[in-house]
Amino acid sequence: MNVMDQATKPHERLAAVLAPELESVNTLIRERMASKHAPRIPEVTAHLVEAGGKRLRPMLTLAAAKMCGYDGPYHIHLAATVEFIHTATLLHDDVVDESEKRRGRPTANLLWDNKSSVLVGDYLFARSFQLMTDTENLQVLRILSNAAATIAEGEVLQLTAAQDLTTTEDIYLQVVRGKTAALFSAATEVGGVIAGRPEDEVKALFDYGDALGIAFQIVDDLLDYWGGDATGKNVGDDFRERKLTLPLIKAYASANDEEKAFWKRVIEKGDQREGDLERALDLLNTHGALEATRQEALTWAAKAKSAMETLPQSELRDLLIDINDFVVARVS
Amino acid sequence: MNVMDQATKPHERLAAVLAPELESVNTLIRERMASKHAPRIPEVTAHLVEAGGKRLRPMLTLAAAKMCGYDGPYHIHLAATVEFIHTATLLHDDVVDESEKRRGRPTANLLWDNKSSVLVGDYLFARSFQLMTDTENLQVLRILSNAAATIAEGEVLQLTAAQDLTTTEDIYLQVVRGKTAALFSAATEVGGVIAGRPEDEVKALFDYGDALGIAFQIVDDLLDYWGGDATGKNVGDDFRERKLTLPLIKAYASANDEEKAFWKRVIEKGDQREGDLERALDLLNTHGALEATRQEALTWAAKAKSAMETLPQSELRDLLIDINDFVVARVS
Repeated sequence: MNVMDQATKPHERLAAVLAPELESVNTLIRERMASKHAPRIPEVTAHLVEAGGKRLRPMLTLAAAKMCGYDGPYHIHLAATVEFIHTATLLHDDVVDESEKRRGRPTANLLWDNKSSVLVGDYLFARSFQLMTDTENLQVLRILSNAAATIAEGEVLQLTAAQDLTTTEDIYLQVVRGKTAALFSAATEVGGVIAGRPEDEVKALFDYGDALGIAFQIVDDLLDYWGGDATGKNVGDDFRERKLTLPLIKAYASANDEEKAFWKRVIEKGDQREGDLERALDLLNTHGALEATRQEALTWAAKAKSAMETLPQSELRDLLIDINDFVVARVS
Repeated sequence: MNVMDQATKPHERLAAVLAPELESVNTLIRERMASKHAPRIPEVTAHLVEAGGKRLRPMLTLAAAKMCGYDGPYHIHLAATVEFIHTATLLHDDVVDESEKRRGRPTANLLWDNKSSVLVGDYLFARSFQLMTDTENLQVLRILSNAAATIAEGEVLQLTAAQDLTTTEDIYLQVVRGKTAALFSAATEVGGVIAGRPEDEVKALFDYGDALGIAFQIVDDLLDYWGGDATGKNVGDDFRERKLTLPLIKAYASANDEEKAFWKRVIEKGDQREGDLERALDLLNTHGALEATRQEALTWAAKAKSAMETLPQSELRDLLIDINDFVVARVS
């Protein structure tokens, strides 16, 4: 590994190694997001797809397939499938969350309207099913259609659990598995399946994606209160949106009566006043909720790493391990 | 055919003939709309699925498969798939149209919220793909995922064509193929495919569904200005929502300058005053737009009938022909 490699981030190194495949994925994405009849579709989709996301999920699929020795053409389709499902989910999420910004740019629902976001999201979902059908691999179809159902289920669960202080860590984990980990684990699992690897290897790839996805989301939720790095996240966004994330669930679990009353006022009733975020941060620290959340992220990252370490050593395997380390490095 | 048969409507007779299969479809639907983690999902879905829709689309699949001699179990899955896609589309349509009523009851977006309608719709889409994957028939997967993409494309096209008086009859037909006929034709086509019928028979089933769907939608759009039967539709809903449907496209095409100015004011600008609907109806009659629209519906119904008549005679085939006759009987 040369000095430049040391300096660049693991997902940038992975993107460099997978450059030709990523180029094919981008070509396929552009091809399939086109619409003969409805030019609004590529407009909306391009806004999001070309917005410079890190393409982390399609890279997981490409890396998993390649490290498993796959030499056919369909990991490209699967990577594009995963990106389409992700993009469709983002479009619908922004409608549900009434978001105005994503990746520092105005959201599609703001630039066009909610209607376009809903319908173009549906179009991308349908396109993703066409793409996966192209592979003619039934196991892959099962994995990805199951993942799509788990994602939607997680999103609905998150909706009904919102602002509900009785949300448990178990429910939080189900939501996280749905909204984030299901697509990560499907992305890595299908890489092994398309390569025809044996069940135990496919299971290890699933476990890696599942644990990586959970660690990724916990870190994201932690940074919302932790901040202090260059993530561009504003401290307190989840607090203001009254989202029940792990730090808050942990703080509420060890709150005394007066503190419980505080959480009920700011989260359940949404009656937030000046100084409340500072009070919340103080309580999160006092009860060690941030530190406990950090430990949880590290535990999941360790699970991801050990799952990946059961697989034969290769450059791509090690890059996937580095990505996992990098995810939690933001809170280490 | 006995006297009772004569008196009942063709879709009721079809439902009677397919009663055992429809019961299996309902059981499968209830099973698959369940969610271990998110009880909101079956609540929202049941509101719509149990609301007493006619189950026309799943009946098309069941009838097509059975008349083709299919004796396996998967026409049940395909019928449930088609109903799930239809239900998901309704949920998203009501969000897009900001509807408050469907089948005489408050819509899900009104009873719960837009968020639930978007996410539960996504869940049903994903479930529909799981159901079709169960069939392990790749041709069926291609047909249904193509249909899902065509539906979403048609909906986006309708959105961008809304209130646009330059909409042509060609664009109208594309919208109708997307929003209605694509699912009808996929429903009948997969019945023939799952039964392993030769290409020409499958093509005839597709043509029947396509033409039936187009006739169905044209009749629906015509009744919005025609009324006068027991459909429960309010005359002028599309006018008030400024939808560009076939009667209006035809009337605008033969409008003089003064009439064009009228249409621009009421449809493009949405400046509607008392007496405008009456004026619109008058123009639609003067230019023969309603009669021309009616003729178009009859032409498509004739196409559906002649496609079906290329297939071997059977009770189910004749019931499908009766259904087609019944669709246009409302405007005959």
